[in-house]
Amino acid sequence: MKNSIRFFCASSLLAVSLSCIASDFRLVSPDGELAFEIGVDSQGKPFYSVNLKNLPVISNSALGLKADEFVIADGLEMNVVATDSVDSSWSPVWGEFESVRNHYNEALLNFCDRNGLQFNLRVRLFDDGLGFRYEVPEQKNVNYVTLRDELTEFNLPADMTMYVIPGDYDSDEFLYTISPLSRLREAMPNPKHSESSRILGLAVQTPMLMKHPSRPLYVNIHEAALVGYPAMALDVNPESMSLSSHLTPDKTGVKAYLQVPFVSPWRTLIITENAPDMLASQLIYNLNEPCAIEDTSWIKPQKFMGVWWEMFTGGKTWAYSDKYNAKPGITDYAALSSNGRHPANTANVKRYIDFAAANNIPALLVEGWNEGWEDWAGYKKNRQFIFDKPYPDFALDSLVQYAADRNVKLIMHHETAGNAADYERQLDDAFRFMKKHGYDAVKTGYVGHIIPRSEYHSSQWMVDHYNHVVSKAADYGIMVDSHEAVRPTGMMRTYPNWVAQESARGGEYESFGGNPPYHTALIPFTRLKGGPMDYTPGLFEPDLAKYGKGNTSRGLTTLARQLALYLTMPSPLQMLCDLPENYQRFPDAFQFLKDVPVEWSDSRYLEAEPAEYITVARKDKNSADWYVGSITDDQPRTATVDLSFLPKGESYEATIYQDGDDADFRTNPQSYKISSRKVNEKTKLKIKVAPGGGFAIRLKKN
Amino acid sequence: MKNSIRFFCASSLLAVSLSCIASDFRLVSPDGELAFEIGVDSQGKPFYSVNLKNLPVISNSALGLKADEFVIADGLEMNVVATDSVDSSWSPVWGEFESVRNHYNEALLNFCDRNGLQFNLRVRLFDDGLGFRYEVPEQKNVNYVTLRDELTEFNLPADMTMYVIPGDYDSDEFLYTISPLSRLREAMPNPKHSESSRILGLAVQTPMLMKHPSRPLYVNIHEAALVGYPAMALDVNPESMSLSSHLTPDKTGVKAYLQVPFVSPWRTLIITENAPDMLASQLIYNLNEPCAIEDTSWIKPQKFMGVWWEMFTGGKTWAYSDKYNAKPGITDYAALSSNGRHPANTANVKRYIDFAAANNIPALLVEGWNEGWEDWAGYKKNRQFIFDKPYPDFALDSLVQYAADRNVKLIMHHETAGNAADYERQLDDAFRFMKKHGYDAVKTGYVGHIIPRSEYHSSQWMVDHYNHVVSKAADYGIMVDSHEAVRPTGMMRTYPNWVAQESARGGEYESFGGNPPYHTALIPFTRLKGGPMDYTPGLFEPDLAKYGKGNTSRGLTTLARQLALYLTMPSPLQMLCDLPENYQRFPDAFQFLKDVPVEWSDSRYLEAEPAEYITVARKDKNSADWYVGSITDDQPRTATVDLSFLPKGESYEATIYQDGDDADFRTNPQSYKISSRKVNEKTKLKIKVAPGGGFAIRLKKN
Repeated sequence: MKNSIRFFCASSLLAVSLSCIASDFRLVSPDGELAFEIGVDSQGKPFYSVNLKNLPVISNSALGLKADEFVIADGLEMNVVATDSVDSSWSPVWGEFESVRNHYNEALLNFCDRNGLQFNLRVRLFDDGLGFRYEVPEQKNVNYVTLRDELTEFNLPADMTMYVIPGDYDSDEFLYTISPLSRLREAMPNPKHSESSRILGLAVQTPMLMKHPSRPLYVNIHEAALVGYPAMALDVNPESMSLSSHLTPDKTGVKAYLQVPFVSPWRTLIITENAPDMLASQLIYNLNEPCAIEDTSWIKPQKFMGVWWEMFTGGKTWAYSDKYNAKPGITDYAALSSNGRHPANTANVKRYIDFAAANNIPALLVEGWNEGWEDWAGYKKNRQFIFDKPYPDFALDSLVQYAADRNVKLIMHHETAGNAADYERQLDDAFRFMKKHGYDAVKTGYVGHIIPRSEYHSSQWMVDHYNHVVSKAADYGIMVDSHEAVRPTGMMRTYPNWVAQESARGGEYESFGGNPPYHTALIPFTRLKGGPMDYTPGLFEPDLAKYGKGNTSRGLTTLARQLALYLTMPSPLQMLCDLPENYQRFPDAFQFLKDVPVEWSDSRYLEAEPAEYITVARKDKNSADWYVGSITDDQPRTATVDLSFLPKGESYEATIYQDGDDADFRTNPQSYKISSRKVNEKTKLKIKVAPGGGFAIRLKKN
Repeated sequence: MKNSIRFFCASSLLAVSLSCIASDFRLVSPDGELAFEIGVDSQGKPFYSVNLKNLPVISNSALGLKADEFVIADGLEMNVVATDSVDSSWSPVWGEFESVRNHYNEALLNFCDRNGLQFNLRVRLFDDGLGFRYEVPEQKNVNYVTLRDELTEFNLPADMTMYVIPGDYDSDEFLYTISPLSRLREAMPNPKHSESSRILGLAVQTPMLMKHPSRPLYVNIHEAALVGYPAMALDVNPESMSLSSHLTPDKTGVKAYLQVPFVSPWRTLIITENAPDMLASQLIYNLNEPCAIEDTSWIKPQKFMGVWWEMFTGGKTWAYSDKYNAKPGITDYAALSSNGRHPANTANVKRYIDFAAANNIPALLVEGWNEGWEDWAGYKKNRQFIFDKPYPDFALDSLVQYAADRNVKLIMHHETAGNAADYERQLDDAFRFMKKHGYDAVKTGYVGHIIPRSEYHSSQWMVDHYNHVVSKAADYGIMVDSHEAVRPTGMMRTYPNWVAQESARGGEYESFGGNPPYHTALIPFTRLKGGPMDYTPGLFEPDLAKYGKGNTSRGLTTLARQLALYLTMPSPLQMLCDLPENYQRFPDAFQFLKDVPVEWSDSRYLEAEPAEYITVARKDKNSADWYVGSITDDQPRTATVDLSFLPKGESYEATIYQDGDDADFRTNPQSYKISSRKVNEKTKLKIKVAPGGGFAIRLKKN
C-alpha cells in the first residue's frame, strides 16, 4: 500500500509561474476541469475560490486561524512554497474497490505577516474535488497554540439545495433536512436527541451535501484525517450564502490545544457533475495516511447477527436483573435473580450461534452480556460498566467454545455510557480479557454525555480517545465498530481495523418511529463519504407491534429494500439485524443475505439521485459474481440496470429479489418476489421498485 | 492482618439504653475518657459533640448531606441501629510499629425523615480520638446522588491555636500558619503555588492541628479512607469558632457523583492531652480497610538516592536537549544533540549507581530519563510525556543491568504534568515497560493543572485516579511514591505498595528559599498523620550558592538535623537527597545515613511540641538496635533522651551525631560532632541542639 509514485511537473501543473513573490495563484485538477484560486486581498486577508469548468463552486472565501497566542488572518503575504503532482494507487484492506487511484496536483502556500506569524496551506486537487489543510510550521514566538477559531469559509455561488442535519457537539442521530439554503433557517427542525448539545444559531454537520439549483453540480463538504483536532461543523448564514468552520470546543470554550508544528485535518470538497460520481468518490480516503498496520491478515470483513434486536422489539432488557442499583464489580450478581427478560443468556445465545452456524454467518454480537446494565446513570456516575464481568447467566467461556466449534466468532460489546475516561482506565484489561477469551472484534458505544465532563463527543480530547482506542485495538489484533463516536473521516484507510462506525441515525430507529425511505437514499451521499456505517440492515419484520410488547413502531421499508441495503450501504462489517425466527419465516429471501459478500473488488453506481434512489453493482472480491442493489424513496419507480459492466461474452445467472407488485412500505412491506434469468453484458433490466422499496440481484457466473 | 476479634458488650459500652426510639445518645471510648454525644434538636437537625474528661473538644455541631436529589439535614429522627466493640490488632507491612492495636467502641445511628430519606452515621471511639462517616443506605426514591455539600461542622470550644495551610483544590505545598483562630483571617498569608486553585474565603486543609489555649488538648482533624469521594477542606468562621466541611468540587461545581449505598470517608479527630501521643496515634490507619494485597513480599521499604538534586542546584535540566518544541514519541530525539546539562545520562547515572552500591543504598531514582521535558505546557497540551521512550543518552537496559550487577534497583519516574487522563491512557504500557525492564518502584508526579480539564488535584475523579494507579501498580507488583497527589488518608494500610507521597511542602523547597525549621517540627503532627512522606531529607550542603549556577537559596537546616529527619519523618521510602560528592565530603556523618533503617518494630515519642521540637526513638525491625532522632525549631534547646525504653540490663553502644557547639542553621550549618558512649536503660542523655539543628543517635546492642 505504499506504491505512491511522485513526480514533479511544474510546467504542466501550474497556470501561473512559480515565483516566490506574493501573487494570486491557480491550481488545477489533473483533468484541468477543476480550479482552485487563492490570493490575498488589499488588507492581506487570504481568500480562495473553486471553479468547475469555469463556473463557480465556492466563491471568494476567507481562510485563517485564531488562537490565544496569535491571529493569522490578515496583513499576510502569500508565497508559493512548492508544487507537486501525484498519480499512484493503493489497495485497501477492504472497501468498494480493489485498487484506488490517488491522482492529484498539489501546492503548498505560505501566508506570513510582518511579525513572522505564519501558516502554510496545502491544497490537493483531484478530478472529483479537493482537500486543503492548514499546516502551522515552527516559527518564532509560537510554541503552544490554544486554538479559538478556524476562520475557513465556504461561500456558495447560488441558493444551493442543502441536505443537512443540525450542528450538534454530541449527536448526529438526526434525519436530514432538504431545503434551499435561503429557507434553511425555517426548514431546519430542532429535534434533540437525549445526548444533544445543539450548536446555537443555524449550523449543520459534515459530511453535508449540496446540489446546485440549476447546474449539474453536487458538492459534499467534510473533512479527512481527523487527528488531534476537534470535529468541524459549519455555521450557516443563508443571507450571505456562507458557510463557515465551527470547531467543537471543550466545555471551557477552547477548540484545541496544539503545539507547532501541527496540521489541521483536510477540509474536503467532493465536487461532481452527477450523483453516481459523488457516490464513487474515494477522495476522503485518498487524503488519509496509508495503512499504519503492517500485518492486516487478521482483519476479516464479515457479516454478523446479534443478540440485540430483541431488546428493541419491547419487553426485553440488556440488564440481567431488576435490581435497579446493582453496581458492576461490587454487587454480587450471582446472588441476584434474573428478571427473565434477558436475552443474553446462555441458552438463547446458543440458539443464535446454531442459527448463525447453519447459515454461514460467521459472527454473533451479544449485547447485555456484562455487569452494569441495571441502571443507567451515565454522566451521573463515575463507573457505569465493567468489561470483564459477564452476567451470571452468560457462560462466556463455554459459549465462546460452543461458537468456535461451529465456526462462529462472538463479537464483544463495550458500551461505555459516554464514560470514555473510565473506558480508558479499563481498556487494556478489557482488550486482554477479549483476547484471552477468543474475541477479535468489539462494538463500542458512547450513549450519553461524556466523561471527562469537560468534553463533548466531537471535541478534540474525544477525537484523540477514539483514535487511541482503535490504535490500541490494532496492537491487540482487535477490530472496532464504534457507535456514537465522532463521524468518520476516512481514518479507516490508516486503521482498517476500524471496520465500521454508527455516527448517524441507524437502523435501530426503525424501532423508534422509523427511518423514512429517503434517509437511506441520502446517507450514502453524506455520512458514508467518511467511512462505512454499521447501519444494521436486514429487517424482515418491520411491524414491531406484532411482538405485542408495547413497541408499536413500524420500520419504513419493504423487505426487498432491506436486501438492497447490503449493496447501497457497503460496509466490511454488516449486520443481519433481525431475529432468527423472522429469517426462518422467509427462507427464500434470506438466501440473499446468506449469499451477499462484504468485500468488493469493483463498484459501479448505475443511477442515483440524493434522497431519491440509488442503484449500484458490485463485484465480489472473492469470486466472479456480481451483485446489484437498488432502493427508492417513498415514490415508486422503475430502475434501469444496464449490465454492460459484465465481462463480454460471459453468461450470468441473475437471481432477482424484488418488491411484489402490491408491495408498499406503509401497507404491504413483506410482499416480494424472486425470479431467475440468464443475463450478459448486453442485458438491460427494467425493474419496478415499490414505494419505500428496493431490489437485490445476485449475478452468478455460469 | 485479618485477626480482628469482635465482641459485643452493649451494657458496658453505652451510657444510655439501646432503645430504637429517637433520643440523645452517648458513646464512650474504651478507657471511658472520651465521649461522643449525638442527637437531634427540636427541628430534627442532627448535632454531635465531643468531650474529653467531661471538658468540651467539639461543641454542638451539625451533620447532614445536601444533593440535587435530596437534603438530609433536618426533620430527622435518630435511631440507634447497632453498637459494637472491637479490640484487635494488625501487623502493618511497614510502619512505626510491628503491631497496631485497633481498639474502639462503635455505634451505628440512623437519621431518617418522614419521607424515608435517610443516612446512617457510623462512629468509632478510640482512646486517642474518633472517626465518623456517613453511610447512605438503599432507600426509596434515591439511587444516584449528585452531592452538593456535606454539612459536617466542627465547632470549637475555645480560641484554639491553629496550625494550618490555606484551603486549595490543587496544591498543599505551603508553609503553615500558626495563629489563634480568632486572628487567623489576618494571619493567613495568601501565597499561591503555580498550580494553586485557592478556596475563596477563609479555608484550611486537613490534616490540620489545633491546640487548646489553656488546657492540655491537641486535636487533629483529617479524614481516613478517601475512596470514591473528593478530599475535604474546612471553611473557617473565626467569629463563630466554627469549622465546616468544604468538599473539593469538579469544575462544574459538583462535589461527587455517587450511587446508593455508599459511605463517605471517615471524618477523623485525633484527640490527645499531649503532643507525643498525637505523634504516636495510629487512628487513621485503624479506620482504613485491611491490606488488599495478598502477597506483600515484594513490597520492600528502602532508602534511595536520586539523579535529581542536580536539577535543583542550578544549571542542569530534566530535558535532554534545548529543542523547545520537541514532542515525545514524534520528534526523533536521536537526531537532536544533548544540551550538555542533562544529568540523566548514562555516565552520570553509572556514577550514582557506583556510589549507591559502595554505600549499600539499594535504589536510585533517575528523573529526566524520558522524552518530553523540553517544553512544559502542562494543561496547554494533550500529551506532555511518554513513559516508554528513554532519552538517547540514557542507555536504559544497560543501566538496569549495571545497577542489578551491583545490587542496586533503578526507580522509575512518571511525571504526568497533571495530565492524569493521558497517564491512564499510557498506564498499562508504562507498567508493562517497567516490569519488562526490571523496575519495581515508580515516583509519580502531577505538576500543573489537571487534565481532564474538569478536575482538580483533590476532586473525586482524581481521588479515583490515584487509587486506580496504586491498585493497578499492585497488580503489576509495583511500589508507588506519588508527588502532587491528594493528601494521604491512611490508604497505605490497604495498599502498602503506596509507600510514600509528597502532598506537602517537601525538602525540594530548600532550593526555593528554604523550609523554616518549625516546618519539619510541625508536619509530623499534620501531614504525616495521613501517611509517610517522601520529604527527601539528607541535605548536607544547604548553601546552593556554592554551585555557582545562579541558585542562591539556602536550606534552613544544620547537617545534624538532616540525619534526625530520618527518625522524625519516618517513611518506608526514604531519599538521600544530596549529591554523592557532598556525602563524600562528610563520610563520618554519612555513616549514619548508611546505617539508619527504614522499617521499625517500635517507636517511642520521648518529647514533642508542635512546630517546636520532636525527639523520637525507634527500634529497627531487623535487629536489636534502636535509633533516636531529635529536631528543634530556630531556637536552641537541650533535649532529654530518657533511654528507659531499652531492655533492662542490656548494654548499647550509642553513636551520637549532633550539632557542633558553634552550629547554627543560618551561619554554620555544617558544624557537627560525633561521639560514642555506652548506655543502658538507666541513661538519661542531655543533648544540646543548635538553632535549626538536631541530632541522631544509633544505639547498637553490645
